[in-house]
Amino acid sequence: PATGENTFYGEFLMNAQGEDVVAGIRTPLPIAALEKENRSAYAELVRIRRTLERHYRDMMDIEFTIQQRKLYMLQCRVGQRNGLAAVRIACDMVAEKLINRTGAIARVKPDDLNQLLRPIFDPAEKREAVREGRLLTKGLNAGPGAATGRIVFNADDAETAAARGEPVILVRIETSPEDIHGMQAAEGILTARGGTTSHAALVGRQMGKVCVVGCEALQVDYRERALRIANRKGVLKEGHDISIDGFTGEVFLGKIKTIPSEVVQVLVAKTLDPRDAPIYQRYARFMEWVDGARRLGVRANADQPDQGANALAFGAEGVGLCRTEHMFFGEGKIGPMRETILAGTAEERRAALAKLLPLQRADFAGIFRVMNGRPVTIRTLDPPLHEFLPHDEAGQREVAAALGVPFERVRERVEALHEFNPMLGFRGCRLGIIYPEITEMQARAIFEAAADVRQAGVAVAPEIMIPLVGHVKELALQAGVVRRVAEEVMREKGTRLRYLVGTMIEIPRGALTADEIAGVAEFFSFGTNDLTQTTLGVSRDDAGRFLVPYVDRLEIYGKDPFESIDRDGVGALMRMASERGRTRRPKLKLGICGEHGGDPASVGFCHEIGLDYVSCSPFRVPIARLAAARAALGA
Amino acid sequence: PATGENTFYGEFLMNAQGEDVVAGIRTPLPIAALEKENRSAYAELVRIRRTLERHYRDMMDIEFTIQQRKLYMLQCRVGQRNGLAAVRIACDMVAEKLINRTGAIARVKPDDLNQLLRPIFDPAEKREAVREGRLLTKGLNAGPGAATGRIVFNADDAETAAARGEPVILVRIETSPEDIHGMQAAEGILTARGGTTSHAALVGRQMGKVCVVGCEALQVDYRERALRIANRKGVLKEGHDISIDGFTGEVFLGKIKTIPSEVVQVLVAKTLDPRDAPIYQRYARFMEWVDGARRLGVRANADQPDQGANALAFGAEGVGLCRTEHMFFGEGKIGPMRETILAGTAEERRAALAKLLPLQRADFAGIFRVMNGRPVTIRTLDPPLHEFLPHDEAGQREVAAALGVPFERVRERVEALHEFNPMLGFRGCRLGIIYPEITEMQARAIFEAAADVRQAGVAVAPEIMIPLVGHVKELALQAGVVRRVAEEVMREKGTRLRYLVGTMIEIPRGALTADEIAGVAEFFSFGTNDLTQTTLGVSRDDAGRFLVPYVDRLEIYGKDPFESIDRDGVGALMRMASERGRTRRPKLKLGICGEHGGDPASVGFCHEIGLDYVSCSPFRVPIARLAAARAALGA
Repeated sequence: PATGENTFYGEFLMNAQGEDVVAGIRTPLPIAALEKENRSAYAELVRIRRTLERHYRDMMDIEFTIQQRKLYMLQCRVGQRNGLAAVRIACDMVAEKLINRTGAIARVKPDDLNQLLRPIFDPAEKREAVREGRLLTKGLNAGPGAATGRIVFNADDAETAAARGEPVILVRIETSPEDIHGMQAAEGILTARGGTTSHAALVGRQMGKVCVVGCEALQVDYRERALRIANRKGVLKEGHDISIDGFTGEVFLGKIKTIPSEVVQVLVAKTLDPRDAPIYQRYARFMEWVDGARRLGVRANADQPDQGANALAFGAEGVGLCRTEHMFFGEGKIGPMRETILAGTAEERRAALAKLLPLQRADFAGIFRVMNGRPVTIRTLDPPLHEFLPHDEAGQREVAAALGVPFERVRERVEALHEFNPMLGFRGCRLGIIYPEITEMQARAIFEAAADVRQAGVAVAPEIMIPLVGHVKELALQAGVVRRVAEEVMREKGTRLRYLVGTMIEIPRGALTADEIAGVAEFFSFGTNDLTQTTLGVSRDDAGRFLVPYVDRLEIYGKDPFESIDRDGVGALMRMASERGRTRRPKLKLGICGEHGGDPASVGFCHEIGLDYVSCSPFRVPIARLAAARAALGA
Repeated sequence: PATGENTFYGEFLMNAQGEDVVAGIRTPLPIAALEKENRSAYAELVRIRRTLERHYRDMMDIEFTIQQRKLYMLQCRVGQRNGLAAVRIACDMVAEKLINRTGAIARVKPDDLNQLLRPIFDPAEKREAVREGRLLTKGLNAGPGAATGRIVFNADDAETAAARGEPVILVRIETSPEDIHGMQAAEGILTARGGTTSHAALVGRQMGKVCVVGCEALQVDYRERALRIANRKGVLKEGHDISIDGFTGEVFLGKIKTIPSEVVQVLVAKTLDPRDAPIYQRYARFMEWVDGARRLGVRANADQPDQGANALAFGAEGVGLCRTEHMFFGEGKIGPMRETILAGTAEERRAALAKLLPLQRADFAGIFRVMNGRPVTIRTLDPPLHEFLPHDEAGQREVAAALGVPFERVRERVEALHEFNPMLGFRGCRLGIIYPEITEMQARAIFEAAADVRQAGVAVAPEIMIPLVGHVKELALQAGVVRRVAEEVMREKGTRLRYLVGTMIEIPRGALTADEIAGVAEFFSFGTNDLTQTTLGVSRDDAGRFLVPYVDRLEIYGKDPFESIDRDGVGALMRMASERGRTRRPKLKLGICGEHGGDPASVGFCHEIGLDYVSCSPFRVPIARLAAARAALGA
């Protein structure tokens, strides 16, 4: 059965041929009923099944026929199973000593674990919904899981409804940092635009939300609070029920029953006692075997303490990417950040940064406390500055009013920050090099937080990561600032702290000159999102028009290179950088923090080229652990 | 003297110290006057000068003093010289057998030739202009030369004024393809925005126009037809005189006398008889020595027959880059191109392309005829499609009216074509792969033109180049289309044509997998503009904010990597691609068609890694020839 329970499960049909079963015109009987019909044939079948499963050491799919009361075996093959069943079968077979732990690990595919970690739709109800024509459209599957709830069109409504205990799906054309509180409150997020690294997808995934994005058939009307589907009659209004499947990208009209994840109830929500959770128990046992088998470390990308806590619950051994800029969107922080950007002089900028310092320090302290001595890789400011300012006039007027500056100044600054290709523009370490005071503030916040937390008796292991380095001199300049501030803080606090300074390898020049860069960097972390964009010359946000046919129809790439590392191109650079880096600095620590860190095939590649760890979103940590174990076992 | 004439040239001051000469408080006498003052000292000085110049085999800068009527030599060093003088001195010294041809080549720096090829400002008048405070501001020196004329603010006015024989400077915020006829008519082009590969810079350079771009202090008001300079009082109106120096980026108020290039008058304008042109004669003699010394071929980037003719006049051996899309902006061609883009179905698209076919065929025939059997590398459609549609509502309404389609359709198409990072978007071979009918039309136009021109007795050597290839399968698909159409046309015309199919190497993945790509490509041409953007992760259009301080103040890069090849990064990929490509296909033809093809240091690097040719804008061909010769001589 779908649960993976070890029972003899099947159907049979009297006076019929095989086609009749497949065709579904007549309703077959459960296999147990055969015992009454033909006791000896049934007994023989049970015996044969046991022989076959012992021989193949797996759950088998058996086809048989009975003619003249005599049993004939027609065929047998290893049975299909869902994720839940895969883990249960593997655990049962170890218990029965049919296979060992290695065999168990080999039998569970990493993505199978998703079904233990996320809510899923009740399969029967979902089939029913399709049959009834309630499948509205399909988008990109950006955050796995199944969610059902009422439609809301803005973040505040989501929050209000959630406060009333009403499950909602937040529907937006696209999301922006201002929507974060609503995303947190919603069961699921559905957007009309954006790809699988859009804001909605990235943030949704990190929160563990069910997320479907880039659903181009959606026509969202915020004013009317209405949703239309292209080429389909009817209007969905605020409050109507909708269901989204983040495994497949499907969007359904109405409710579909979801089955919650026992593992998440135990580990994250903490609403279930492990002793009452048999699925969780099997998961825990299985993951213990997994951890015994792997060599690669597994960390999580986490920007906030709660995400860090989730990461730990899922078995992360540290934080591989803490994006400081996400912190800037939190309560009270966006104001000083905007002041920083609007500052006319270095002095004004320093004054604004001084307001950010205590806020950032508190953020870092929170993460350090939760991670309790495990390494925390903190990336200095990365995104282009225009991302922190609104692009519409109303928003700009609001900002001007809030900060007490003329509207013109805000508008002009936004215009001045406009870029033709922001992905390749004024961002990453380029910001900190032109405005060293930003890096100074961030370094100070990190080291002051580290000193304070250590003072309180909790160990800390900060790793400061400089993004978008292409030339060793860029890293040397920024590392110089970080180390100088570290010395200052340690002197002020009368303490010593151990820390590392390293870099992301995310543009080809960084990989090509890795030997030089390793002269300064104590670690490399491959930022494979951007490395894929630059190595392939493909903007992920714009790739839809050609990358989908490239993969699906033309088979130019075997898999979407943004989902699974392109080994011949991006992978070749990673291998080159790893080798050259370690030649220069044999103890160079190597990791990956791009989205690929949660993709099983990519994790296998990272194992192969000798990285020390992978880092992925918290909910993918178990998957990465299993992928790492399978890579180590050569599965 | 500034002409390089071999005379004894200098000044002296009686009853004075060296400082008095340098300080310029008293006016010194010409050296010839010394003969009257002190005949024996003068004779001795002339003798010593000759000895020194024979010894050093160069023009010398000599300092002397006369005390008690006795001559003392103070110091001597190799004399500074301008470009004009450098060539003359080198030629004279060869004539005097002081040096051989190799020595002559070593003594002229490639960029020196610019001063023989372009108009320059009269040095005295320019100094005067600076002294008078007429230097208004400075932009980027995008097209060398000096130009003076009246301000016009749009292309039509430029054309009208030029038709009246009035020299004008076209001043624009930025230029677009619609401005081409005005750029052609103007003496010089001045823009407020854009970098040295902006439309204005690229097109201006290819036309040989004086061009200053990205002049951020300019405040252009099209409605008022007025120009203001930030932080400077006063308004410049249409019709006012202005002068721009494309060597330095300087912009001056009022007229400054220009000195035209004798070489251009002979070779391009054909307004001067070579026998009456001593500077041209020396240039021609010197370039003959240059061509005898070099191994690298030199081609030109030329989109139109007239540019091809200029390229030949400057000694190009072929066309290294013919951008087919520039042709689309010519008279009558933009309409069908826009129809192609607005087409709703493949059938509509084919109908629109059918209108383009005869126009493209005529373009190619023109180039083939001019190049007379020399290789012509034609690149298939490259830019993102939105570049062919206007982005403002008025323009979109015009297009809609002209093509008889609803305005909404134009607007929606423009919106649908919007990209976050167009440089990494739906362009290059991605267009031809998704819409193979575009490549089909272009291939047909090329081969039909080639067959027709050959029929008329002129040899042809087309080389079809597929842009932005990252994966060998992309090239294989496009090469398949080209070869199929070639066979069709040859069958129809009952003839055989020799041609090559190759690719640009302009994204890192192309370089990394060059061995695979060389399995299909018969040639590689390095597109170093885009290869630099992707390898460094830097959008050239957006780089101003950090790349200028990176080079000037922080010395992260020794030279602007968009001007001179970044050898450690981009160069490493070029070397790798050349080696891997030739390992797979030993006779693989290798060239470069990025802007770097005209940069002397980059030409040296191309020689070093064994390329077959470089290609640059026509006016830089002599410079590239000299750089190639110097590289071959190890100068």
